[in-house]
Amino acid sequence: MTTLVDRTGTLSGRLWQASEAIYNSIPVEGFLHVKGRTEDYKGALQFIIDACRPYAADKVDLADFIRTTGNDVEAMWAELLEIMRDIQNEPLRLLIKKFVEDARLTAAYKRAPAAMQMHHPFVGGLLEHTLNVARAARALIPLYPQLNADLLLAGIFLHDIGKTAELSAATAIHYTDRGQLVGHIVIAAVWIQEKAALVAEETGEPIPPRTINLLQHLVLSHHGVHEYGSPKLPAIPEAFALHHLDNLDAKVWMTTNAVDSDTDPATSFTSYLSQLETRVYKHSQDLTDSQPHLPTE
Amino acid sequence: MTTLVDRTGTLSGRLWQASEAIYNSIPVEGFLHVKGRTEDYKGALQFIIDACRPYAADKVDLADFIRTTGNDVEAMWAELLEIMRDIQNEPLRLLIKKFVEDARLTAAYKRAPAAMQMHHPFVGGLLEHTLNVARAARALIPLYPQLNADLLLAGIFLHDIGKTAELSAATAIHYTDRGQLVGHIVIAAVWIQEKAALVAEETGEPIPPRTINLLQHLVLSHHGVHEYGSPKLPAIPEAFALHHLDNLDAKVWMTTNAVDSDTDPATSFTSYLSQLETRVYKHSQDLTDSQPHLPTE
Amino acid sequence: MTTLVDRTGTLSGRLWQASEAIYNSIPVEGFLHVKGRTEDYKGALQFIIDACRPYAADKVDLADFIRTTGNDVEAMWAELLEIMRDIQNEPLRLLIKKFVEDARLTAAYKRAPAAMQMHHPFVGGLLEHTLNVARAARALIPLYPQLNADLLLAGIFLHDIGKTAELSAATAIHYTDRGQLVGHIVIAAVWIQEKAALVAEETGEPIPPRTINLLQHLVLSHHGVHEYGSPKLPAIPEAFALHHLDNLDAKVWMTTNAVDSDTDPATSFTSYLSQLETRVYKHSQDLTDSQPHLPTE
Amino acid sequence: MTTLVDRTGTLSGRLWQASEAIYNSIPVEGFLHVKGRTEDYKGALQFIIDACRPYAADKVDLADFIRTTGNDVEAMWAELLEIMRDIQNEPLRLLIKKFVEDARLTAAYKRAPAAMQMHHPFVGGLLEHTLNVARAARALIPLYPQLNADLLLAGIFLHDIGKTAELSAATAIHYTDRGQLVGHIVIAAVWIQEKAALVAEETGEPIPPRTINLLQHLVLSHHGVHEYGSPKLPAIPEAFALHHLDNLDAKVWMTTNAVDSDTDPATSFTSYLSQLETRVYKHSQDLTDSQPHLPTE
Amino acid sequence: MTTLVDRTGTLSGRLWQASEAIYNSIPVEGFLHVKGRTEDYKGALQFIIDACRPYAADKVDLADFIRTTGNDVEAMWAELLEIMRDIQNEPLRLLIKKFVEDARLTAAYKRAPAAMQMHHPFVGGLLEHTLNVARAARALIPLYPQLNADLLLAGIFLHDIGKTAELSAATAIHYTDRGQLVGHIVIAAVWIQEKAALVAEETGEPIPPRTINLLQHLVLSHHGVHEYGSPKLPAIPEAFALHHLDNLDAKVWMTTNAVDSDTDPATSFTSYLSQLETRVYKHSQDLTDSQPHLPTE
Amino acid sequence: MTTLVDRTGTLSGRLWQASEAIYNSIPVEGFLHVKGRTEDYKGALQFIIDACRPYAADKVDLADFIRTTGNDVEAMWAELLEIMRDIQNEPLRLLIKKFVEDARLTAAYKRAPAAMQMHHPFVGGLLEHTLNVARAARALIPLYPQLNADLLLAGIFLHDIGKTAELSAATAIHYTDRGQLVGHIVIAAVWIQEKAALVAEETGEPIPPRTINLLQHLVLSHHGVHEYGSPKLPAIPEAFALHHLDNLDAKVWMTTNAVDSDTDPATSFTSYLSQLETRVYKHSQDLTDSQPHLPTE
Repeated sequence: MTTLVDRTGTLSGRLWQASEAIYNSIPVEGFLHVKGRTEDYKGALQFIIDACRPYAADKVDLADFIRTTGNDVEAMWAELLEIMRDIQNEPLRLLIKKFVEDARLTAAYKRAPAAMQMHHPFVGGLLEHTLNVARAARALIPLYPQLNADLLLAGIFLHDIGKTAELSAATAIHYTDRGQLVGHIVIAAVWIQEKAALVAEETGEPIPPRTINLLQHLVLSHHGVHEYGSPKLPAIPEAFALHHLDNLDAKVWMTTNAVDSDTDPATSFTSYLSQLETRVYKHSQDLTDSQPHLPTE
Repeated sequence: MTTLVDRTGTLSGRLWQASEAIYNSIPVEGFLHVKGRTEDYKGALQFIIDACRPYAADKVDLADFIRTTGNDVEAMWAELLEIMRDIQNEPLRLLIKKFVEDARLTAAYKRAPAAMQMHHPFVGGLLEHTLNVARAARALIPLYPQLNADLLLAGIFLHDIGKTAELSAATAIHYTDRGQLVGHIVIAAVWIQEKAALVAEETGEPIPPRTINLLQHLVLSHHGVHEYGSPKLPAIPEAFALHHLDNLDAKVWMTTNAVDSDTDPATSFTSYLSQLETRVYKHSQDLTDSQPHLPTE
Repeated sequence: MTTLVDRTGTLSGRLWQASEAIYNSIPVEGFLHVKGRTEDYKGALQFIIDACRPYAADKVDLADFIRTTGNDVEAMWAELLEIMRDIQNEPLRLLIKKFVEDARLTAAYKRAPAAMQMHHPFVGGLLEHTLNVARAARALIPLYPQLNADLLLAGIFLHDIGKTAELSAATAIHYTDRGQLVGHIVIAAVWIQEKAALVAEETGEPIPPRTINLLQHLVLSHHGVHEYGSPKLPAIPEAFALHHLDNLDAKVWMTTNAVDSDTDPATSFTSYLSQLETRVYKHSQDLTDSQPHLPTE
Repeated sequence: MTTLVDRTGTLSGRLWQASEAIYNSIPVEGFLHVKGRTEDYKGALQFIIDACRPYAADKVDLADFIRTTGNDVEAMWAELLEIMRDIQNEPLRLLIKKFVEDARLTAAYKRAPAAMQMHHPFVGGLLEHTLNVARAARALIPLYPQLNADLLLAGIFLHDIGKTAELSAATAIHYTDRGQLVGHIVIAAVWIQEKAALVAEETGEPIPPRTINLLQHLVLSHHGVHEYGSPKLPAIPEAFALHHLDNLDAKVWMTTNAVDSDTDPATSFTSYLSQLETRVYKHSQDLTDSQPHLPTE
Repeated sequence: MTTLVDRTGTLSGRLWQASEAIYNSIPVEGFLHVKGRTEDYKGALQFIIDACRPYAADKVDLADFIRTTGNDVEAMWAELLEIMRDIQNEPLRLLIKKFVEDARLTAAYKRAPAAMQMHHPFVGGLLEHTLNVARAARALIPLYPQLNADLLLAGIFLHDIGKTAELSAATAIHYTDRGQLVGHIVIAAVWIQEKAALVAEETGEPIPPRTINLLQHLVLSHHGVHEYGSPKLPAIPEAFALHHLDNLDAKVWMTTNAVDSDTDPATSFTSYLSQLETRVYKHSQDLTDSQPHLPTE
Repeated sequence: MTTLVDRTGTLSGRLWQASEAIYNSIPVEGFLHVKGRTEDYKGALQFIIDACRPYAADKVDLADFIRTTGNDVEAMWAELLEIMRDIQNEPLRLLIKKFVEDARLTAAYKRAPAAMQMHHPFVGGLLEHTLNVARAARALIPLYPQLNADLLLAGIFLHDIGKTAELSAATAIHYTDRGQLVGHIVIAAVWIQEKAALVAEETGEPIPPRTINLLQHLVLSHHGVHEYGSPKLPAIPEAFALHHLDNLDAKVWMTTNAVDSDTDPATSFTSYLSQLETRVYKHSQDLTDSQPHLPTE
């Protein structure tokens, strides 16, 4: 029994005449062309595979297989860079520039999801989420002059950048070995050190150690608590700002998505979301209860 | 031994000839005029009280005894109401209006601290904090069209309003009996019900039950987790927005205040803050370490 | 696929020729008359619906659809009121009286379950549970003269009264919107305030604020810990008495029910109960092990 | 510097001319006769010891040195045994009898405190607390016929009996080595096994293994959660009954004692009790607030 | 529906013509001879039982039904005793000797599993695990002269000995009543007391109380934290040594077993292990990644 | 008031005639020569500073000011390198070599403490602790052939190496800014990446990514749980081995040190250690209680 996946969902598949030859022909990360028919099985559709063969990846439109942001990736990227241009501090500017000039990284940044499932779990999700947080920061910075705006903006750009190496979205979203063993938080901390070394090499002027410490601190502490994998707790106002704006965007996405994905018109709450430890109420947009009283469960 | 308190700090006092008559003359919530001298005692100053007598409260400038916001209270109040005028939903407008028209409550709102110690612990702190959160919400609302802006704004106005009854700031900040036994979260939930009843009475049109439910939910869930006294966890996007903007403002205040209050130039971290489970770094404003390396402890 | 529910249990149903017309004819909270046959499906019975039509609720004996207390509801109600007559404190008497005179509330009190699943999850369960706790309190009050008996008894009467609005037991037990968003604990706190206002209005004598504070405190703290939704922790002896007597009754029900519901004679423990974090031993009534040694799992 | 202790409290003592000879003359668990004078030191009284010599323990009235129950110990013991006579099950009766016939243990039972600080921390406290729980159980047993009354009563008699070996109250209350390393819960479980062996030896009839298992289970699980040192969680209704009646008695003592010990008439709450995670409200006995509004802190 | 179990795994069985006579003929802890055929059912094999009859336990090779250690049990036992001969302290030697001379216990020790599922869940697992820990201790003792080697070795021998009574491995591994109600930790503490009494009886010389306290402390604290059922936390260096060596052996087994049991060559991580709160990486033995990049999930 | 510190302890100092000139003359990290006299103050000695002047650091014997390992540092270092020579895997050998060839790092490794207070908090403590763990691993590796010995040994060498940058022991042990903001765990992960780049540069052969991932995973997960700052939980057997051997050494040091530091002969337990959540028993080395029974507290 196997699972067929494309962007519309998943379907159980069954190949009754599986030979070793067929099994070996299945690519580890690639595509299959399958032929067969659906049957009702255990109250759900099942796809009976009569034949299958590998399918060249370059003939495939990836968007058919994996969910993708609905926004224009290049426009989002341009806007994000535009916001980063607000950074006045020269070492921070040079450091961000090193990341942006890394073509492989930039490509990955535009493509990576923000998570496997939690929030923005689709191609382009990392960029969409980061842009949201950057916009929010730009809107709040005038209200909080106590914050070091340069540090906050740079921290936002980098906070989830390690997800480009933590997650793979080649044919489906999954964790890489490095993602599972090291994680995006530490990956980003390492990259900051590497890019800082590049800047020092090129300019002859090292990034001040305090700048590196603070930037790594922002990345390391942005999950807010140890339990969610932050090795350090926020110890500067900018770290709290990053943590709360990051969370706000993630939680708005999660609750909104839960409501949008819900298909049962007869209930006013979604099913239980373990990561929120609650069900989500579906009618906060509409303050007036025009429908008859509906049960929750 | 007693403790003398005014806005500049506290001082141990000692009255060697305390008689029952003197003791009984001390007002429970009032002011004393004391006469005496300071002595060095155990490495700290101590005030030896030679004589004391009650002092009429109306002759006192309260600002001499209790820390007060540095901002113009009436200007802040006006701006907060101005932001609330963005609310379009009629029942919500009427409900907020009922709170604003309650003169006793309005006076208390302008005067209450936001906490005993945690954040904005001074006269006017509730208003200052609430205005900050309202400004932040107004700045973010255009970025998050998924949010019900009316509900969020009304929730911000009301989220800490129960502190006007939870805390007393007559001569010093302390909890009231009702604050300790019931708490500001439930106090606010009760008031929403009461004001909604007033609206219904006056207009003949009840506030829709769903509106009341959602508004109470915002207040009840705004601490985000049960451990901090929220009887319900956030279950709508607006509740997460309120929770994170509220926290962001509180944490920026706490970290900034910790740095501002620190008086030891020889360290780069403040002392340990138990509520943040960390020390706060004092130099996030200045990315370049121009000083020699300083020890943390 | 749907689920057919009556008091004897649940049964999967399947309607192969579901049309939109049929779907729309299904009442949101009502009853269906179904015609069809059972089939064995996946090792369980399944009901194949050949036809269905709405069934008038007034022709239905609700007791056929929803589990109900085995005790006489009116007798339980009379006994509960009898116990409440022990209350000497006049304001408390008047307050309780206001609740009892509320005919809609009284009807709901007699009918509400005490929970969806945890304990006494059946029609009449709230009353049965509250009466048990009241009886226990009456038995213990002579042993604990330190306790304010009036306060404890009134607190018991009101501690779960919010469940009449938190849960609906129209055709099955489920949470209401208000139950999910606000919860029975805060609902009861609000009602206490409302009924106190009624008393003040009628008698011209307000319920003393301390009485209201203490009564609300009892309700708010009766879950004992924040994690179970209490916004305040017990701070008076009566709150601990209520918490422990409430829990004792719930836990005795849960363990006894787990044993009674167990149908496997070959084991000496029930299956794992997540809310108790343990299996329940089935033979504590019989101290002598007359059977051969039986495995637990 | 040393500490002088008697039942009225503690006092710092200072012996300026301490020689090794004097030091060696001080008994490890015994009494000293000291001669000297008090001085004011650091705002507190200090006793300057001019001379001291050991004092024979048999000339001492222990009650002068250690707090003691206000009740008649023999009367309490008689009543406890009277309640135990309700036990019908023969093996349980024989087992309890073995404990009662152990003269050394009985003497210790009448003398032991129930804790160092938590509740009933005085000579006779174990007996006073156990009797309270037994009385409560006797009052509730008619209301809960589901409970195995014999098992519950025997469990109550034994639940804290290990404290006779966990705590020493020779000249002050402190933990014994065995108390710290093994603890009263396991000490009691061991004793049940030993006394059961004695019964079997004498009667030729072993106590049924299930009886021993259940009795040990009651003792092991009576703290209710692992965090408080219970190696097993309650898995029978009787274990929950024991846990809640035990806690109810302890918490009523703790809150009442906190109020009784409070000496500050100007506050309505006691100081913070870390074991309850709250302050205790001092006026739950008096529902009417006749005093002016008083601050909490 | 029933479950057929032997050492190769489990299989669902179904007996369509179950009569009460057949049901009653099934032994509670015994073996069945079944006749029938397999069918594909819900994508898995199911065994349709046409007939079954009890099968005499003495004709059965138990190794056909229950997983067993791959090592020579007698050789392991001899090596364990050999290590215990390093104990120099006479009372400890006599105490261990009493356990070894208990033939019933020794037989159970050689046979018991170390757990139902966690680690070494097979016949002989207790011995295999204990021997591993004893070997590790013997290797480390020369490096840690601060440790009381005698105490540590005796503690290792006894730390899980209660599992001989906690688990039954007659025909499958399951908890006994005593295991569920009392648990192996307290069972061992009781046995230490009983064997110490035997030594005292025979030699006329009691085991020093401190020796018993320390040995029981080692057993009681070896789970390291209350949450895992230890009523006492480690309070001596030997207790920490036992705890960490015990855990090291268990965790190496669990991770290695997870990798060995994994059958999916297309992933580099095993499925999630709830007891470790992580997936296990399968390639730590092979530092060079010769395969193409494989997805985790 | 200031604090005078040297290796023998701390002493309160007081400078009555402090002028700004004197204050400014005090070096931030340096030494002072003070002149004055001791006085008894609050029951403790106090040093009254009559005069003070900076003292050149190069004239100071640091060992007079800061506690230092009692072992020969060069001998320990040689033995640690000797153990590392067991590593067979070429990339791992080259990587470790890069760390060893870094003269500044090596000097720091020999000097760094292992902690501020927890365990081995003295100059040379990092080396002493790491050597202990390495010895333990070498002793256990033959017993656990499932473990990748090369990976484990390299992980031990590196697990706490970041403490050379986390802590400063110039004149006293304190955290550096980088230690507080980033922490030794992530510092080490960054260094592994940097040294790996150096190896690749020199040899033209990159360290295999899997090797880097696994080594970083060992360092990141060695605290075992998120709460203690590990961003990843152990997911390979070697990570559990490192975690438990590291802890075993730390806990044996902590308990032994607590006993050795205890100066009260009249108690059998040390004072409470918050990091162990218990007192430590002082007599586990001596199984026979030859002293009279002593109180714990």
